[in-house]
Amino acid sequence: MLVEAAESDLRLEASRIAAKVDAIFAHYLTDTGDGRDRLFQAMRHAGIGGGKHLRPLLTVAAGRLFAIDEDRAVRAGAAIEAIHVYSLIHDDLPCMDDDDMRRGKPTVHKQFDEATAVLAGDCYHDLAFELIADPATHEDPFIRSDLVLELARASGPNGMAGGQMLDLVAEGQALDIGAVTRLQQLKTGALIEFSVEAACIMGRLPPEGRTPYRGYARNIGLAFQIADDLLDHSGDEAAAGKRLHKDADAGKATFVSLMGEERARQQCTLLVTQAIEHLAQHGHEADLLRAIARYVEERDR
Amino acid sequence: MLVEAAESDLRLEASRIAAKVDAIFAHYLTDTGDGRDRLFQAMRHAGIGGGKHLRPLLTVAAGRLFAIDEDRAVRAGAAIEAIHVYSLIHDDLPCMDDDDMRRGKPTVHKQFDEATAVLAGDCYHDLAFELIADPATHEDPFIRSDLVLELARASGPNGMAGGQMLDLVAEGQALDIGAVTRLQQLKTGALIEFSVEAACIMGRLPPEGRTPYRGYARNIGLAFQIADDLLDHSGDEAAAGKRLHKDADAGKATFVSLMGEERARQQCTLLVTQAIEHLAQHGHEADLLRAIARYVEERDR
Repeated sequence: MLVEAAESDLRLEASRIAAKVDAIFAHYLTDTGDGRDRLFQAMRHAGIGGGKHLRPLLTVAAGRLFAIDEDRAVRAGAAIEAIHVYSLIHDDLPCMDDDDMRRGKPTVHKQFDEATAVLAGDCYHDLAFELIADPATHEDPFIRSDLVLELARASGPNGMAGGQMLDLVAEGQALDIGAVTRLQQLKTGALIEFSVEAACIMGRLPPEGRTPYRGYARNIGLAFQIADDLLDHSGDEAAAGKRLHKDADAGKATFVSLMGEERARQQCTLLVTQAIEHLAQHGHEADLLRAIARYVEERDR
Repeated sequence: MLVEAAESDLRLEASRIAAKVDAIFAHYLTDTGDGRDRLFQAMRHAGIGGGKHLRPLLTVAAGRLFAIDEDRAVRAGAAIEAIHVYSLIHDDLPCMDDDDMRRGKPTVHKQFDEATAVLAGDCYHDLAFELIADPATHEDPFIRSDLVLELARASGPNGMAGGQMLDLVAEGQALDIGAVTRLQQLKTGALIEFSVEAACIMGRLPPEGRTPYRGYARNIGLAFQIADDLLDHSGDEAAAGKRLHKDADAGKATFVSLMGEERARQQCTLLVTQAIEHLAQHGHEADLLRAIARYVEERDR
């Protein structure tokens, strides 16, 4: 009964925050009445509607620990989502993962063309920094430039893009569990961790006070990836809205291929339990973070 | 005699600043001893050595008007150059302009592969914001976050990337001189204008005091594009280090195809003269900006 209530709360909160992020994107992506309309159309196709918006939800949820104004947390979260959307558009390109479906719709290069997809990704990349550096995101310019610096690091060669590169060169290689963990900590973990870190920065938490939240984010990030591998292994394509079984087809090492389905599921549960333990010092203000952790575990079912 | 001295000064200054930008890139692009080394290698290939570094040179030159510390101006300029390099890597892709040579070397997707080229461009995009948001670029966080905001705008759909989109949809269309001017003001103008604007921001010049420098930058940007069209029309491929005569081959409207070679050359001279007139209130501290303006006019010869 309690769990059910928390679940419907999470669903409500998630769709409320997703609508706010969509509205921010829509505000920036209005047609200009010239040849760029095709670019704005492609950007709206990729980023508005559909999408779980896990990252902005994490920023809002972590923001509650430090009483951050929700609309400001949503703006920072939208910047992180913009980086995520740019990476999806580019990763789906024929020269990368060559995917035709994303979020239940044709990928941008399928619906439009490759050149438009490259540019739409590039423009989401700029939008991320335009959003996070805007005074509306935080009144203190020191906080804003700190957010920019950390977002650029989480996104670049020592974060998400570096993980994608490791993934590209790993094809056909026999990675062990340590190498897969390292790869995923960069490819998906860095941006998920920054989603929580952004709230810590906005809450003026000194780096030494961020340890439990970093622990939470790191556990969530890894659990999320294991759940993703489980979904890729045994999920339903129509429900997922994208092609599955890609890793097995490509002969890629995943947590599931290395640990087996049963142990991967146990590991995911353990990580979620640990994530929630990092929040032990908090009361109800951490409920949304706890609900997200439980959701991450259950999303493959 | 005087002009000759100025020319050799410009060449000296340009190569000195280019070496500083190269050193900044090299510092950020060191190998990590894992699969990302291929990414760093591709980034060094694209951004270090070769390249005129016009944009950082403009930031340093404009910085002299406001006594900006040169190393800080170089850092801001390196951020702008990083955006420029990212755009060259992506624009050269097979799905965009499909170019094999750049700065006298094979393009990144030719030397490496397309996926690496997409990621190398994406990582230069991040590097730009990491550089410009760094406290070493300016001590005042308000200035830093302002630089981030304006760089994101100059780079995105209402700047460089928007211009590239206009260029893509223009293929096969009969553009008039107004449409070509508008396209180029976005595609190459926006970033050249920001190269000067960045120095104004760092010099704490209020927007209403920036008019002459914006005028200079706008004139230079347009003159640069006309000179580029002249070079594409009648230049030497080996000297240029890239494929030429592309526009005529693609049936694209350019300043030269619309005005004819002679009028285009006159227009370029006029723009450079106007650019220099915008600096009339300044003495020797504007000499480098004046020398750059004259160089822009002469680069097609």
